[in-house]
Amino acid sequence: MGLNFPIKRKERQKIINKANLGMDFEELINESNEYYLNNNIAVIHKKPTPVQIVKVDYPMRSKAVITEAYYKTPSTTDYNGIYKGKYIDFEAKENHNPTAFPLANIHPHQIEHLKKIIEHGGIGFMIFYWTAYNEYYIMPFPIIEKYWENAKKDGRKSIPYKEFKENGYLIKEGYLPRLPYLKVIDENFL
Amino acid sequence: MGLNFPIKRKERQKIINKANLGMDFEELINESNEYYLNNNIAVIHKKPTPVQIVKVDYPMRSKAVITEAYYKTPSTTDYNGIYKGKYIDFEAKENHNPTAFPLANIHPHQIEHLKKIIEHGGIGFMIFYWTAYNEYYIMPFPIIEKYWENAKKDGRKSIPYKEFKENGYLIKEGYLPRLPYLKVIDENFL
Repeated sequence: MGLNFPIKRKERQKIINKANLGMDFEELINESNEYYLNNNIAVIHKKPTPVQIVKVDYPMRSKAVITEAYYKTPSTTDYNGIYKGKYIDFEAKENHNPTAFPLANIHPHQIEHLKKIIEHGGIGFMIFYWTAYNEYYIMPFPIIEKYWENAKKDGRKSIPYKEFKENGYLIKEGYLPRLPYLKVIDENFL
Repeated sequence: MGLNFPIKRKERQKIINKANLGMDFEELINESNEYYLNNNIAVIHKKPTPVQIVKVDYPMRSKAVITEAYYKTPSTTDYNGIYKGKYIDFEAKENHNPTAFPLANIHPHQIEHLKKIIEHGGIGFMIFYWTAYNEYYIMPFPIIEKYWENAKKDGRKSIPYKEFKENGYLIKEGYLPRLPYLKVIDENFL
C-alpha cells in the first residue's frame, strides 16, 4: 500500500475486497498469538467475550443450553499475557474511517485499565487496524490518553491518521507470524 | 475450625450452613481483587466465562439477545493480572471432598497453561477452598504437577488433604481484603 491520502475510491475498493478475502483482524492476532505460544515466545490469550447469562436450560441427556444472555461492556482489554517475563496487555481496534479514529470506540474502562497496568510496571498499548489502508499500528498509551483527556475538555473527539503515521509504530505484516507485533514491542517498549 | 479429621457429621453440617450464609468462593476472590485494585496494590481480574455463541436475535429498538449458546471448556485459568510488576496467574478450585482433591476437576489445558506461565517467569499457582474445613490454601504448581504426572502413570488420581496441610500455604481470612492471598505470595513466591 502506498501512503496516498486521501485514498482513491477505486483503490479503497480493492483493499476492501482484499480484506474480505483475508482473515479478519481478531483472527490475525489470535493466529499470531498461537504462533508465539507454540514457539515458546510468549503466552498471550484473548479473553472470552463477556456475557451476562440470564437463562440456562438443562435438557435431559444433553449439555446445558444458554437460552437468554446479553453482551456486557468489557471491563478490561481484549488481550493479556506474559512476554519476556513482563506482563503485557492490549486492546485491538479496527477503524473504517480513513481520516481519524473516533474515541467513542474506546470504553472508559479500557483507558482506566491500561493506565493502571502501566503504573504497575506492565506493557500496555493498543493495536489499530486501519482498514482503508490495510495498515496496523501500535499506538503507545500516553498518546491515546492525551487525546482522551483533551476530548473531555471539549477538544477533538478522534485521533487523526497523521498522529498514527508520526507517532505510532507500523507493524509490518509477515509470514510467521502474520502480524509480528512483538517485534515492535522489542524495539520500542522493552 | 479445629483440625479434627475426619470431621464429625454434625460439625460438617454447621460448616455447610455457615458457608451458605457467606459469600461463595468466587465472590470472595473477586471482592479481594477489587480491594487490591482500588488500593492500587495489584490489577487482577477474573476472565469472563467462555461461551460459544450460536444464535443472536436483534429485536427492533432493543439490544441484541443471545438465544442459543453453550459453555466452553476454558483454555486457560480463571484469573490473571499484574502484582509488583510481575505477571500473576491462577485457577481457583472448590473442593467438597473432605479427604482429597480429585484431579478430574482440573482441565489438562490449565496444567499446560500454568506450566508455560512459570517457564516464562510468571507467578502461577492454584487456590483451593476446602468447604469441609472452611480452609483456603495456595498450592505451588510443582506439587500439583507432580500429582498430575503420577496420575498419568496409573498413580493416585487425587491430592490428599495431608499434602495441603504439609506443603500448601493456608490463607488466613482477614477483614480487608477478606481473602488476603497476596500476603502468601509476598512471603513465599517473591
